[in-house]
Amino acid sequence: MKKIINNVSDIEREMLEGLVAAVPKKLIKLNNYNIVVRANRNPKNVALVSGGGSGHEPAHAGYVGFGMLTAAVAGSVFSSPTAREIFKAIETVANPNGVLCIVKNYTGDVMNFEIAIEKARAAGINVDYVIVADDVASQSTAVGRRGVAGTVLVHKIAGAIAETGVPLELVKAIAQKTIDNVRTMGMAIRPCTVPATGIPSFELSDKEMEIGIGIHGEPGIRRERITNADGITKKILDRILTHLEYAGREVVVLVNGMGATPFMELCIVNSFIRDYLYRNGGIEVYDTMIGNYMTSIDMAGFSITLLRLDDQLKMYYDAAVETFALKK
Amino acid sequence: MKKIINNVSDIEREMLEGLVAAVPKKLIKLNNYNIVVRANRNPKNVALVSGGGSGHEPAHAGYVGFGMLTAAVAGSVFSSPTAREIFKAIETVANPNGVLCIVKNYTGDVMNFEIAIEKARAAGINVDYVIVADDVASQSTAVGRRGVAGTVLVHKIAGAIAETGVPLELVKAIAQKTIDNVRTMGMAIRPCTVPATGIPSFELSDKEMEIGIGIHGEPGIRRERITNADGITKKILDRILTHLEYAGREVVVLVNGMGATPFMELCIVNSFIRDYLYRNGGIEVYDTMIGNYMTSIDMAGFSITLLRLDDQLKMYYDAAVETFALKK
Repeated sequence: MKKIINNVSDIEREMLEGLVAAVPKKLIKLNNYNIVVRANRNPKNVALVSGGGSGHEPAHAGYVGFGMLTAAVAGSVFSSPTAREIFKAIETVANPNGVLCIVKNYTGDVMNFEIAIEKARAAGINVDYVIVADDVASQSTAVGRRGVAGTVLVHKIAGAIAETGVPLELVKAIAQKTIDNVRTMGMAIRPCTVPATGIPSFELSDKEMEIGIGIHGEPGIRRERITNADGITKKILDRILTHLEYAGREVVVLVNGMGATPFMELCIVNSFIRDYLYRNGGIEVYDTMIGNYMTSIDMAGFSITLLRLDDQLKMYYDAAVETFALKK
Repeated sequence: MKKIINNVSDIEREMLEGLVAAVPKKLIKLNNYNIVVRANRNPKNVALVSGGGSGHEPAHAGYVGFGMLTAAVAGSVFSSPTAREIFKAIETVANPNGVLCIVKNYTGDVMNFEIAIEKARAAGINVDYVIVADDVASQSTAVGRRGVAGTVLVHKIAGAIAETGVPLELVKAIAQKTIDNVRTMGMAIRPCTVPATGIPSFELSDKEMEIGIGIHGEPGIRRERITNADGITKKILDRILTHLEYAGREVVVLVNGMGATPFMELCIVNSFIRDYLYRNGGIEVYDTMIGNYMTSIDMAGFSITLLRLDDQLKMYYDAAVETFALKK
């Protein structure tokens, strides 16, 4: 394993310390916890808490800030934070208007967030949650659709409405509406290497790719012969388009790198998308994000997320945001 | 070679088309040229033109926009654009207040920009240029210091003053002042693969790293046994600190990924920097940028850039910017 790290056991802490050191007036890392919270938060607004395993950077701590998350809790690489850690994050940002947790649909994350939320409610905290489940590749598995890159758009839109000071029920409703309208699918040409094991998460020959990967180093739902960027992009879009009715609608496109994919390649992927969507049902691209938003350590590959818009989602998507990893 | 591309000969064009497709109201790609220009530019402001070989994305086209570049011209991967292409970019954005070209110090880039500038002057265009030379690793080579990630800060600061409508001489002076105050050094744990050759640009064993790499796949000035993130970061900082007098000054830190480096690792690198600089001469970190700003395709590694500030540079560094790859 070749990585630019110190001790494997310090990765999560040092990573958050390095992020907070970049913007020390804006972010605070809690002592003895891998939790990052906003330095200046409005105690009248619903607080948003998200998190999950590390290895998805800049998610989630990179999205803590004005117009997005209030706190992010990081577990070990690819492992859910404990219920105790999640409770600490909820407790830290709790206020009378309430806390909304945004949870990616993975068994461990959902279980630990639910335990923490139950504990927080028992302690008198007004807290609720939504589960993001955008990955169409895993639709037919037991867990159902996993929560992947679409989560970033849920953070963005829920964060925007939370800044307006509305009650928890409304923030939750808009977060849920975003979830209902967002779908993602990914692929990889090279696996990632989890620091603790030091070995690649799967093996691929020089001619193969994995279609339908998640963000925890899992192989995809199919191994195929690698084809060109247009062919791969078309395959992913076609699959996403069968999962929601996008025809005639406006969408946000998120072309998300998995961590080790050059920006050049993500742009080449995007060069295919706008025209193809328009020719397939008159889908209009309202805006496009390209970059490493929800990664899988050093996996090489990408995912495409399509968020179906209406005027309300558009307004909150467009709203100002000021975080380390997303500014508008 | 495993890449998410179509034909190798179309990479540069498709990459720019994909970028422009993401923000079609803000960027225009010229027909038949790998040149990207701002859609809405103020004809009263000095225009800034930069460019160089492709493979450094999001540089340079990702920095075209309000408060940064007016045009970017992209050569083939790791090859200078031709003088004809550079002239076309200059001609397209030329206005009576003039054009400033920001050139990275590489033999091909400097030669072709100089030919294009001579041609533009002969055509009556008011044009001048600066050469960025921030890479301390190459100081003792024949070409001298190469232009690397510090170029992004030159774009930022020159772009900010250009927006104020001042004359060409002043924009050039501030760009040059930025160049005089910025130094960079990089390292890699894995080489990049140039699409046209399909083979890694050098070979490294699992125990080795290259210190002092450039951004064109070159090996570094030394091959060493890989050490931990703190050790590597210290080594790079120590080298940079011998090149300019930073003691007691404020600096901008840019921790730049080379294309395939996880954000997690860049943050771990940054976790060492702030305290170390303060303990070594009371250097204060004014602001920190972490991300893939000036890449070398899919190289895994990073560079650190230190920009020494004064009140004037700080003001232009802080000014608003709205490009695809940098927003403030």
